[in-house]
Amino acid sequence: MTITSLKRKLIGEPFPTRDDVHERLDKKRALAVFASDPISSNAYATEAIMSVLILMGSAALALTLPLGIGIALLVLFVIFSYTQTILHYPEGGGAYMVAKDNLGTMPSLFAASALLLDYILTVSVSVSAGIRAITSAIPAAFEYRLVLALLAIVLLTWVNLRGARESGTIFAIPTYAFVGGVLVVIGMGMAKYLGLFGAAPLVVEVHDVAAARPLTSFLTIWLILRAFAAGCTALTGIEAISDGVKAFKHPEARNAAQTMVVMGIIAMSLFLGITFLATQLNLLPSEEESILSQMTRSITGGGPVYYWVQFFTMMILILAANTGYQDFPRLSSFLARDGFMPRWMQNRGDRLVYNGGIIVLAAMSALLVIAFDANEIAMLPLYALGVMLSFTLSQFGMSRLMGKIGHLKPGSSVFTGVTTIHYEPGWRWKQSVNVIGATVTGIVLIVLTVTKFAEGAWLIVVAIPLLVYMLRSIQHHYVSIRQALSTQDLTLDMLHEIADVVVVPMADIHRGTLRALRYARRISRDVRAVYIATDEQQKERFMVRWQRFPEMTDDVTLQCIEYEYRDILTPLVDYIDEVSHKEFPDRLITVVIPEFVPESFTGHLLHNQTANILRVRLRNLQNVVVIDVPFHVPG
Amino acid sequence: MTITSLKRKLIGEPFPTRDDVHERLDKKRALAVFASDPISSNAYATEAIMSVLILMGSAALALTLPLGIGIALLVLFVIFSYTQTILHYPEGGGAYMVAKDNLGTMPSLFAASALLLDYILTVSVSVSAGIRAITSAIPAAFEYRLVLALLAIVLLTWVNLRGARESGTIFAIPTYAFVGGVLVVIGMGMAKYLGLFGAAPLVVEVHDVAAARPLTSFLTIWLILRAFAAGCTALTGIEAISDGVKAFKHPEARNAAQTMVVMGIIAMSLFLGITFLATQLNLLPSEEESILSQMTRSITGGGPVYYWVQFFTMMILILAANTGYQDFPRLSSFLARDGFMPRWMQNRGDRLVYNGGIIVLAAMSALLVIAFDANEIAMLPLYALGVMLSFTLSQFGMSRLMGKIGHLKPGSSVFTGVTTIHYEPGWRWKQSVNVIGATVTGIVLIVLTVTKFAEGAWLIVVAIPLLVYMLRSIQHHYVSIRQALSTQDLTLDMLHEIADVVVVPMADIHRGTLRALRYARRISRDVRAVYIATDEQQKERFMVRWQRFPEMTDDVTLQCIEYEYRDILTPLVDYIDEVSHKEFPDRLITVVIPEFVPESFTGHLLHNQTANILRVRLRNLQNVVVIDVPFHVPG
Repeated sequence: MTITSLKRKLIGEPFPTRDDVHERLDKKRALAVFASDPISSNAYATEAIMSVLILMGSAALALTLPLGIGIALLVLFVIFSYTQTILHYPEGGGAYMVAKDNLGTMPSLFAASALLLDYILTVSVSVSAGIRAITSAIPAAFEYRLVLALLAIVLLTWVNLRGARESGTIFAIPTYAFVGGVLVVIGMGMAKYLGLFGAAPLVVEVHDVAAARPLTSFLTIWLILRAFAAGCTALTGIEAISDGVKAFKHPEARNAAQTMVVMGIIAMSLFLGITFLATQLNLLPSEEESILSQMTRSITGGGPVYYWVQFFTMMILILAANTGYQDFPRLSSFLARDGFMPRWMQNRGDRLVYNGGIIVLAAMSALLVIAFDANEIAMLPLYALGVMLSFTLSQFGMSRLMGKIGHLKPGSSVFTGVTTIHYEPGWRWKQSVNVIGATVTGIVLIVLTVTKFAEGAWLIVVAIPLLVYMLRSIQHHYVSIRQALSTQDLTLDMLHEIADVVVVPMADIHRGTLRALRYARRISRDVRAVYIATDEQQKERFMVRWQRFPEMTDDVTLQCIEYEYRDILTPLVDYIDEVSHKEFPDRLITVVIPEFVPESFTGHLLHNQTANILRVRLRNLQNVVVIDVPFHVPG
Repeated sequence: MTITSLKRKLIGEPFPTRDDVHERLDKKRALAVFASDPISSNAYATEAIMSVLILMGSAALALTLPLGIGIALLVLFVIFSYTQTILHYPEGGGAYMVAKDNLGTMPSLFAASALLLDYILTVSVSVSAGIRAITSAIPAAFEYRLVLALLAIVLLTWVNLRGARESGTIFAIPTYAFVGGVLVVIGMGMAKYLGLFGAAPLVVEVHDVAAARPLTSFLTIWLILRAFAAGCTALTGIEAISDGVKAFKHPEARNAAQTMVVMGIIAMSLFLGITFLATQLNLLPSEEESILSQMTRSITGGGPVYYWVQFFTMMILILAANTGYQDFPRLSSFLARDGFMPRWMQNRGDRLVYNGGIIVLAAMSALLVIAFDANEIAMLPLYALGVMLSFTLSQFGMSRLMGKIGHLKPGSSVFTGVTTIHYEPGWRWKQSVNVIGATVTGIVLIVLTVTKFAEGAWLIVVAIPLLVYMLRSIQHHYVSIRQALSTQDLTLDMLHEIADVVVVPMADIHRGTLRALRYARRISRDVRAVYIATDEQQKERFMVRWQRFPEMTDDVTLQCIEYEYRDILTPLVDYIDEVSHKEFPDRLITVVIPEFVPESFTGHLLHNQTANILRVRLRNLQNVVVIDVPFHVPG
């Protein structure tokens, strides 16, 4: 009972099931909730591009801006496609649902696996980057970054297990504070750059510029592709809204779609602004201080605006990690409902949240943070791959859906099995945009895979099919269990008969075993006490004690088995097996196990775990019913 | 069953109990078995002294020899006392038995705890030192020392779990090879030192001699005491023969006593020889190469004799570790027999060895090796403390015994409870020697504790009383269980009546739950199926299915409990608790749990561990019998 009360203390009193009404978000708060992930990518996306370009010498950093513009264009396609997804799948579910409805089971499992891995990475990357925002400002904290990151994960897990109720409002503050802060910095930077308002023109910091090394043209292209791939982390989190349409106020789908567009505009403005200024300032990526921190410091001179931006960078990154805590358990529960994940991931706990999913996510992301020593730049090559695969599958699925819509008669509608579609006049160009989008993200996916392969992306390339295989095996298991348990064609004579025999293993005569014997005699006329004799002296002692209670033992058969080894369970299980298979085949036989229950924990450790091991061994026998007759003892 | 066959593969076919005849050792082989531990101390004892003296500057190393002579004198006393122990306690048991018989329970538990800790340290120290003998010869292996040491522990554990049968012969080779090798080296060194046989006089290696720092006289005395204490590791293992008298051929006690004297002479000759030459050669202790290795190398020039000594140093140290594997399980089984240790430490496994003790020892010593990174010099401060405490208690106990012997009439004899004593004419001087020995080892114990306290001995000072407390608590536990189970004044009406009621929790209607229901109906007329309804829709579905099998359900009461949380076990256990306490107080009630048994391991992971958790929760209720009705499902 102490465990229960500890649990109550930690995560609070349970909520009754009827309290399960979703808080509906207006657009302003929804933007804050869903935008924290994509907007927070600004804390590291530019830096990710620069970290690659610097390998060609610092002059190559001039390419940062053009690559940034390319990424912004890619975002346009994706946002267009996902607004369509939202409008056509108002129940939510994102890429998994779209793929399931339009491409079939296997593609949907690939999309789901890709997203699950990405959500885990969202937590690991965002938490690590959030902690780095702080260690950039307070360098002394740098050596504690791993501990700090793990603490942040524990905190997030705790908050989510309690069930965050007013998340909308909580999210609004840091998201808008971060966006505002960065916009102020970009504004100041631009003003200085343009020499407006009499401001001193922007002081360009000149670093020791490494001489551009002569590179082969192949290597140059390779590095540019890698830099582009690195920057694609800016796309992560865009799809989150499509999963959570049901969180919006009425009209859900329209509100969600509009929010998505606004989110894309804000995220890309910040991204391009930061990228432009970072290039103009000739900043160099470094492990100790992030590019955003360097930029803010050099534009604002390190005053209150700098600390504002750093603080809210950390806050928004931690909140971005929190979106992983929303998305992973939700997608897992969809999968569990469809039988691809263990059923317990579908159950909601005391606080109406998906405990199972939350705990799995916390464990996996903590492992990643430990493996990568909370260095988010090292984790980025693993990131974005999953997102890009789900984008490709989702857009490809949407183009199929548009095809189906095109085949409808104007004014008619049809239910696909998941959603209802109506004829739409513009289906043809929407289909084209989706095909182009799928092609572009598909190419980016290949570029990402190839360029980041050796840096860690191979892990994801291996993990996705493994995860798909796991999901499929779980479903197979559930299907075969359902068949085995089915009462469809069951007639009662198919249930096994119960044999009138009870076996009672007895190691000694004491109050515990006598109680078991009494129970056995009550339910059967054929009671067999089994004693395994390994030592002549002990056997004699047993026999004397056996005869002391004739009213208990007179009608009981005593089976005394001589055994010349010490492992007494083997002859015991052999005897029971023989009774089961030879004497009473196809019937249920019963074994009564007398069991000590010591009242202290140490008491449990002290006893031969014989009863437990016996129970496990008997479980392998098909038709043996086990009765535990407990005997509580102090100490 | 796969676990059983894996076990067979690893440790071999089980031995029948009748095979349990101890191999009796003749004196030559017994010397090899028991001497490996004390003789092997020569691999590090001299070095331990020098490592402390060097702190006073290398000139202070001249003190090594005098300190070595002091230690050799101490060994004389101890050996005298233990030959007496052997002659008076021919059943074995050493310090624990002597203390139990002459000083009482608490002193005997202190002696036992001290020895148990020391045996663990024997394994850790000897294995680490053995690996260092190899890394001294092959420096490239140095960085793998931890892995090598752990491998050695695994290997020793494996060999001991298999039950080493011909240990005498196996031991003889390395022990005599080591003794022979070191004697050859000492001989060569002496010959060179004396300029005999026209040999070139010993080349004295001159190191950069650190200038002797001016020290206060207090610090000087302190360091000399510390060096002496460090050298006392040479005493470890001497007591082993007294534990294992029964391993000798007839006349056991006399053979054992003689072997002990020979062992002491050999061990001390090597110790003094090594100490003398190491001083003459001006060797300096270093972490990478042991003193013994340096000495052998400089005397023999690194040829075959050098590798011989190094190889057999490793072998004898590994064998010395093996004595820990003999002593720890044996002493644990003595303690288990007296109820101070868990009973399973008294059981012998398939190969007639004390598995429990072997595994506990392996785990503890591996932990120590990891904690100290396989650096035996760092572990030495923990060592020897336990030995010295057991020496002190044992000699003090022997002096008491001699007192008892002195009070007997000449020619008479008496049984002490453990052993039979006869009058002996020389009892008075034997008593005096024991008192002097106890006093000297007692003083050394204090010196050891004080000088090594900060270096790690505090751990032992803390651990011994904790262990004593643990042993006492275990005994308390067994005593209270014995009382609770006793059939002494038992009359049958004191056993609980069995109530005619069976509760069957049902989450669904399927073949598994129907089977459970059938079983329940067979053993009782008052069967109550309990359904916890958390969802209106599911409840209706359940009701429909319930009515499909009227011949199964007509005479069963259906208890449908509405519950507004998701944790269905709470209302279930509350209901059962109510039935137990309110309806049938002081009687046994029965709960039948329908249980899935998936046939694969993954299957187990996939299911709500609901049945297991329910069983654990019900175990807290005093008078509830639990029946598991299994239903095997594929997958």
